[in-house]
Amino acid sequence: MSPNSKGVEILSIGTELLLGNIVNTNAQWISERLSQLGLNHFRQSTVGDNYDRIINAIQEISKRSNLLITTGGLGPTPDDLTTEAIAKSFNVPLFERKHLWDEIKQKLSNSKLQDNSSSLRKQCFFPNNAQIINNPRGTAPGMIWEPIKGFTILTFPGVPSEMKTMWEETAFEFIKNKFSDSYSFFSNTLKFSGIGESSVAEKINDLLNLKNPTVAPYANLGEVKLRITARAKSELEAKNIIKPVKEKLKKKFSKFIFGEDHDTLPSVLIKELAKRNETIVFAESCTGGLLSSSITSISGASKVFQGSIVSYSNELKNSLLNISEEKLTKCGAVSEEVCEAMAINVKEKLRSDWAIAISGIAGPNGGSQDKPVGLVYISITGPNNHITNIKKIFNSTRNRIEIQTLSVNVCLNSLRLILLSKSK
Amino acid sequence: MSPNSKGVEILSIGTELLLGNIVNTNAQWISERLSQLGLNHFRQSTVGDNYDRIINAIQEISKRSNLLITTGGLGPTPDDLTTEAIAKSFNVPLFERKHLWDEIKQKLSNSKLQDNSSSLRKQCFFPNNAQIINNPRGTAPGMIWEPIKGFTILTFPGVPSEMKTMWEETAFEFIKNKFSDSYSFFSNTLKFSGIGESSVAEKINDLLNLKNPTVAPYANLGEVKLRITARAKSELEAKNIIKPVKEKLKKKFSKFIFGEDHDTLPSVLIKELAKRNETIVFAESCTGGLLSSSITSISGASKVFQGSIVSYSNELKNSLLNISEEKLTKCGAVSEEVCEAMAINVKEKLRSDWAIAISGIAGPNGGSQDKPVGLVYISITGPNNHITNIKKIFNSTRNRIEIQTLSVNVCLNSLRLILLSKSK
Repeated sequence: MSPNSKGVEILSIGTELLLGNIVNTNAQWISERLSQLGLNHFRQSTVGDNYDRIINAIQEISKRSNLLITTGGLGPTPDDLTTEAIAKSFNVPLFERKHLWDEIKQKLSNSKLQDNSSSLRKQCFFPNNAQIINNPRGTAPGMIWEPIKGFTILTFPGVPSEMKTMWEETAFEFIKNKFSDSYSFFSNTLKFSGIGESSVAEKINDLLNLKNPTVAPYANLGEVKLRITARAKSELEAKNIIKPVKEKLKKKFSKFIFGEDHDTLPSVLIKELAKRNETIVFAESCTGGLLSSSITSISGASKVFQGSIVSYSNELKNSLLNISEEKLTKCGAVSEEVCEAMAINVKEKLRSDWAIAISGIAGPNGGSQDKPVGLVYISITGPNNHITNIKKIFNSTRNRIEIQTLSVNVCLNSLRLILLSKSK
Repeated sequence: MSPNSKGVEILSIGTELLLGNIVNTNAQWISERLSQLGLNHFRQSTVGDNYDRIINAIQEISKRSNLLITTGGLGPTPDDLTTEAIAKSFNVPLFERKHLWDEIKQKLSNSKLQDNSSSLRKQCFFPNNAQIINNPRGTAPGMIWEPIKGFTILTFPGVPSEMKTMWEETAFEFIKNKFSDSYSFFSNTLKFSGIGESSVAEKINDLLNLKNPTVAPYANLGEVKLRITARAKSELEAKNIIKPVKEKLKKKFSKFIFGEDHDTLPSVLIKELAKRNETIVFAESCTGGLLSSSITSISGASKVFQGSIVSYSNELKNSLLNISEEKLTKCGAVSEEVCEAMAINVKEKLRSDWAIAISGIAGPNGGSQDKPVGLVYISITGPNNHITNIKKIFNSTRNRIEIQTLSVNVCLNSLRLILLSKSK
């Protein structure tokens, strides 16, 4: 961005945002891209589908910024007011672009909508000197328009898939060339498992104050990430800035780091097992299929995953996994003994190299003083038939879905650590 | 809200929002609550952790609104500037509330943090006439403050769980009493399956223009919802306003409507099967456990769900489900023949009343001209051993996760329709 630049703003337009009907994921997505471009993005606003309020917002923004990104309000309904309001903000008329109407008609399979009086025709009106942003995934185009010197507006529809495609195919190059200086931001994310966000942050207080690269921690349920971001003129330069910090982190946290960027625990495990040419099966009780589906959500799972037995009822633990009724009665389904037997038997029955079994109480009902909600047993066994038993008691504030999700996480991370210790 | 009122705004404060590191779910959550209270909420803004920009935003908002909700910037770090910037906006000093510091010290188990010089102490400073909003889930309190006549500010931390608890325990009553008129909004949502959003919307053009109640359509992957919202003085009055529209919709869409409000397809099925005292099992291939986990994510699943076999590999289709190698070779694993046999065999083997089997190609690899990615077979069989076979070809733009999710949806909705046609 040029030295005398004022910055970028985002204006989200749509009454559904003010009513709280939808979360504004568009603003987050665009913000992320603006910061990757190294742009000075300092404010976001949201207004409803209200002509006067859209105009007020645009006029304000034109006084303090030099680039405005809008989303929403480009469709065919009477509520869609964005282009009209923008033009009115600068007292400029709209003109129909005939070729756009032809394009829209071509896109429509429904002949009823091809009527020249269709409400869709509204989407072809733009200020005379606006450049069109094609919309390959929908009918409403956007525009790039500089209504007054030093202030440019880019408009996008509110539908995320349309907005993203238009950004990537048209807007990105325009913004990069016109507004981004020769510096860009490049990020590299390290992913952690088996350690909490505060424990990570406490150990790297020095790194959190760095300016280039910056290091920022984030956390989802059961997963902690550190994003290392460098400002540089090229990707190569950025990698060199990131490298020493990344190596320091890898040394400090070693086995807590399971991967980078797009890696997930399932994807890392599939890769590792495939490398070893080993297979895996599961016996699931309290997670009820979630462990299996976490693996099969990844393309390529079939290379290592053979299948699983979801033995939710005790009858099936007995009939499918040969857990004796005696053991079920004596130890209970949620016990180390039963879980271990589930792992051994599923591995043998499904003829696999590795097996994980899990049995616990996901709640909210079914807990007791001895065996509270959140108690989970996990057993893992591998090619050498060694058994690893894990007992976890999740915090009582955790709900059913969280207990299931965190349990799957512990299963996957525990197997990862076992594989790591026996790396070939 | 009083007749001469100007309205409510939300100001979200945090550089992480401008960098796109997090999605602003707080703004959505608060918006939803404001609209339930019938408040006139017409604008949202986001600024970073920047002293001058926070002040600018607050001064602007104080001129056009009479209630401002802020989130973020209440913590102990130097980045947390909200209270300071608000006070500065109206040139008012901050004073320490001694009892708050005592409370914070009590909350902390870590003795290091109890040092009187702790950065947390900053959280105890407020304008003299501000009312404190207790934070039962964290250390940073918020405030209710009227710096100038006719303009009130409520501050909340950015951590969603803390903000929500403070809203529910303190802010809600205050706002309702001071700003909400005697009217509130009440909603009732009808949920659809097996029909698209545009098909629903086309059929109810007249209802979409109603003023009280309003009818608004929403869609997630595989699920369409219509929210009917009434403005009324009491819940009973609202129900009476909603009732005729709801009955009209129920008549028009009959079996496409599977439930209301918190109902989900799995929860509705569990309830229906429990009522019949019937059990269910699954044989999953391409969904790899997702169908099972959709059922077991619901508390009470164990009443009807016994378990399932995730036969991802052909070997397990053979060894666990007795699908002959000959049939697998001749018809292929993704075929009506194999899927039907999976359903029949899993029902018999797991001794259940109902069984669903599913086999398909979730992609992105593994497709062919004959059997493209997105081809899915589903077989359902019940107490009378009648078989329902379903063949689906999902659009080629669908990714792996979408194909798996939509397949699970078709399984659940198809079973729902079968149960409906055989309702007891």
